[in-house]
Amino acid sequence: MPADSTIIVNGEDRKNAILFESLPERSKHEDFIRRAVDLLVERVVFGRANRSSKVVEWTSPEDIKKAIDLKPQDGPASHDELLAFMADIARYSVNTAHPYFVNQLFSSVDPYGLIGQWLTDALNPSVYTFEVSPVFTLMEEEILREMRAIVGWSDVEGDGIFCPGGSIANGYAISCARYYFYPEIKSKGCYAVPNLVVFTSELAHYSTRKMATFMGIGSENCIAVKADEFGKMDIEDLERKINESIEAGSTPFIVTATAGTTVFGAFDPIVPIANLCKKYNLWLHVDAAWGGGALMSKKHRHLLNGIELADSVTWNPHKLLAAPQQCSTFLTRHKHILEEGHSSNATYLFQKDKFYDTSYDTGDKHIQCGRRADVLKFWFMWKAKGTKGFEQHIDKLFDNATFFLEHIRHREGFRLILEKPECTNIMFWYVPKCLRGCENEPTYYERLHKVAPKLKERMIKEGTMMVTYQPQGNLVNFFRIVFQNSALDHKDMVYFANEFERLGSDITV
Amino acid sequence: MPADSTIIVNGEDRKNAILFESLPERSKHEDFIRRAVDLLVERVVFGRANRSSKVVEWTSPEDIKKAIDLKPQDGPASHDELLAFMADIARYSVNTAHPYFVNQLFSSVDPYGLIGQWLTDALNPSVYTFEVSPVFTLMEEEILREMRAIVGWSDVEGDGIFCPGGSIANGYAISCARYYFYPEIKSKGCYAVPNLVVFTSELAHYSTRKMATFMGIGSENCIAVKADEFGKMDIEDLERKINESIEAGSTPFIVTATAGTTVFGAFDPIVPIANLCKKYNLWLHVDAAWGGGALMSKKHRHLLNGIELADSVTWNPHKLLAAPQQCSTFLTRHKHILEEGHSSNATYLFQKDKFYDTSYDTGDKHIQCGRRADVLKFWFMWKAKGTKGFEQHIDKLFDNATFFLEHIRHREGFRLILEKPECTNIMFWYVPKCLRGCENEPTYYERLHKVAPKLKERMIKEGTMMVTYQPQGNLVNFFRIVFQNSALDHKDMVYFANEFERLGSDITV
Repeated sequence: MPADSTIIVNGEDRKNAILFESLPERSKHEDFIRRAVDLLVERVVFGRANRSSKVVEWTSPEDIKKAIDLKPQDGPASHDELLAFMADIARYSVNTAHPYFVNQLFSSVDPYGLIGQWLTDALNPSVYTFEVSPVFTLMEEEILREMRAIVGWSDVEGDGIFCPGGSIANGYAISCARYYFYPEIKSKGCYAVPNLVVFTSELAHYSTRKMATFMGIGSENCIAVKADEFGKMDIEDLERKINESIEAGSTPFIVTATAGTTVFGAFDPIVPIANLCKKYNLWLHVDAAWGGGALMSKKHRHLLNGIELADSVTWNPHKLLAAPQQCSTFLTRHKHILEEGHSSNATYLFQKDKFYDTSYDTGDKHIQCGRRADVLKFWFMWKAKGTKGFEQHIDKLFDNATFFLEHIRHREGFRLILEKPECTNIMFWYVPKCLRGCENEPTYYERLHKVAPKLKERMIKEGTMMVTYQPQGNLVNFFRIVFQNSALDHKDMVYFANEFERLGSDITV
Repeated sequence: MPADSTIIVNGEDRKNAILFESLPERSKHEDFIRRAVDLLVERVVFGRANRSSKVVEWTSPEDIKKAIDLKPQDGPASHDELLAFMADIARYSVNTAHPYFVNQLFSSVDPYGLIGQWLTDALNPSVYTFEVSPVFTLMEEEILREMRAIVGWSDVEGDGIFCPGGSIANGYAISCARYYFYPEIKSKGCYAVPNLVVFTSELAHYSTRKMATFMGIGSENCIAVKADEFGKMDIEDLERKINESIEAGSTPFIVTATAGTTVFGAFDPIVPIANLCKKYNLWLHVDAAWGGGALMSKKHRHLLNGIELADSVTWNPHKLLAAPQQCSTFLTRHKHILEEGHSSNATYLFQKDKFYDTSYDTGDKHIQCGRRADVLKFWFMWKAKGTKGFEQHIDKLFDNATFFLEHIRHREGFRLILEKPECTNIMFWYVPKCLRGCENEPTYYERLHKVAPKLKERMIKEGTMMVTYQPQGNLVNFFRIVFQNSALDHKDMVYFANEFERLGSDITV
């Protein structure tokens, strides 16, 4: 035993141990953290969420590489250099906290969500055992139970998990459904089960197909059901395709309905889909990643009528409820299926001879091992706003969306894609002066298709707002504006429309 | 058009828009953020990383539920209540920043990593397109390129991604390998390809088997290769099992070697495994989630000799390099395989008619859609320390591990499991007085098995350190102490050993 091993002879002397800390090093770090936090709070948090700042300081990839020295070096950067890097990273990053960032299905930086996230980071947990993550484990349990109650599964206990994004949550649905009908999949693989097929709308998010591919099912076995003119799944086509696939020798096992499609914000009719699932003995998954937040509004939850008939649900609080990135959940009415379908009982982590109730060690039902705690930011927002606060938030978003829709419905230069969109996505063509009145010309749509990219380029280069566009099916490029930030009001809605006019009216195509 | 739409007639008037902000609301938020940040910095960050604080304030699940009101309410909590919640959450959470938290393959909260993470949160990005995440996209590209160079793939360009944990990174390896040999898997699924089998060591992390199961291959088709007495993959057994599976009609396609096994920290012999992969035309994946950091040390990178022969590598900077949770990468020498194997070309997100070079829109090679930016915290640490700083960090960890090993090698009450462990995991039995000299009694190991849970219970209830234990194969419960925090020094090594003695010597079993 080395001589110095006697310095600390028992736990009582632990106070001495602090002497071992390198104090100059520590005070250097403390000084840096204080300066960095000042910069974060003043310049990044407070400096960016107001309307007078730019949404984006457009810079080409080449110029960003010139402005920020991205390559790591052999030696350390000084604290001043690090602070300058922070300022530059913020400067050239898109300001997703800005009220006029309405480009994706996420936006804004909620102050309570941010603090919840910062606290999570400072605690740096990985959520697999109660031993290592006691508070986060119980918090996840509580929030997931609350969310299941909101879904409406009052008759069963159910289960749920936080996932790294809605795509992987939709993958869990496939995995649970496959295990439910064919538990031998777990040990024997696809080879021991029939040729399984998945059904989802042609307008569903691409993740169901992508995950089916990743999981060995194959994209061709993910069958696209037609959507009607409103973007909702066509029930007759679903039943037709189920029968066709059975006749072709395949085995249907899951239907993924969408509650809030990515582009149109359409809600598939859950009740008739559930009836078909019952008739054909299929798992019903509802991808409510986008629309799930509407469940918290008495006024709007009817959009998801029948969701309580589902076997499982994807619901991302980071979308309509504006929690920070990422906060995604997979919920199921089947209490044991996540554990049974995914557990591998690693003895190095999930020891059963611990002194506490190891049913709190919930990590084995995940496909991840180490895992971030995505619950606290959402829990903290929920505490800060209350359930009523979320309801008011949702109602405000829908009110803004309706106002914007009515504002542009008859305004010159705007043509609605959907007359009655269901969620807070509003889709429209912006028609510049050169195309007005040309609707009957043969090249009209070909020319209209070119407007959105041109207008978007101007928009980004000026940085006054960010709104996305896309084609869909036979529809040429159109804009989709998305509302999830309840700090916006009717005047902002008018601002958006005016900006389209200002940026786009003189575009020539 | 509503009357008020004329308030803002063009972008020039954007300054007016700030008037629309609810100023009292804003100042209320600002006040809360300042108070919350003070609490975070003073009490959580500075208050927890020193040796005089406890590693854990053990509290049962029931008592935590009593101490923190976890259930969301209808109405909002006050700011004072929210601050009290923050303090309680920190109090009852395990202090993973503590120098004596050596329980998992992650530990410590690096000050630069934390600031990088907080900046990421304040910018709230989702990394799928350059348009939305310009800086993060370029930063990922740069860091992944740098990591590939360190792996040693100087002859090819390669590719890489950040993943939500090493488990999913190991899943990407299976996915890439499967697509490489059988591209028809993408559209047709498992049904169109032979009965594929995966090989990995019996001591490999459970994720390879778990992901193979999730991906439709099945746990029985993930074949466990024997490990030798040092925990390294037995090459002869690998070749034997490859041949056996071929004879049984299966099709081997990937070997996952481990560089730093979870429990023993053993490094599989990559060069002979690579030779077998060449001989049998198999994809070689190296799971260096744990040991990858050693590549940054001239002194220790020999442990991973031959890694440049791999087709792909998992490397988690949140482990040996002590980046915050989570920071995991999947790297491959095959430039196009991630894109080709996983892309789905969703037109709503990956529009090809954007005004910039859309090869920068890298999201489609992931199975996730929305995705956190896990790069900045690591990039920021790398800038702050330099490559040399990481090298010194790694060398210090190995030095501490060696010191601890030699310290307990001949110390009474300690019995090493491995005489010469390769990584910074040190495995040992702690033998209380009642069992010393009883090695030849028939119930010795049965009794020894009960020591670790009892000692762990005392350890956690006193909160003086956290060290994990587990059984493995024929070995009854033993402790595994893991070093990733280079703020520790030799005196801390002695502290750990003394604590085992203090807590455990009088245990009776």
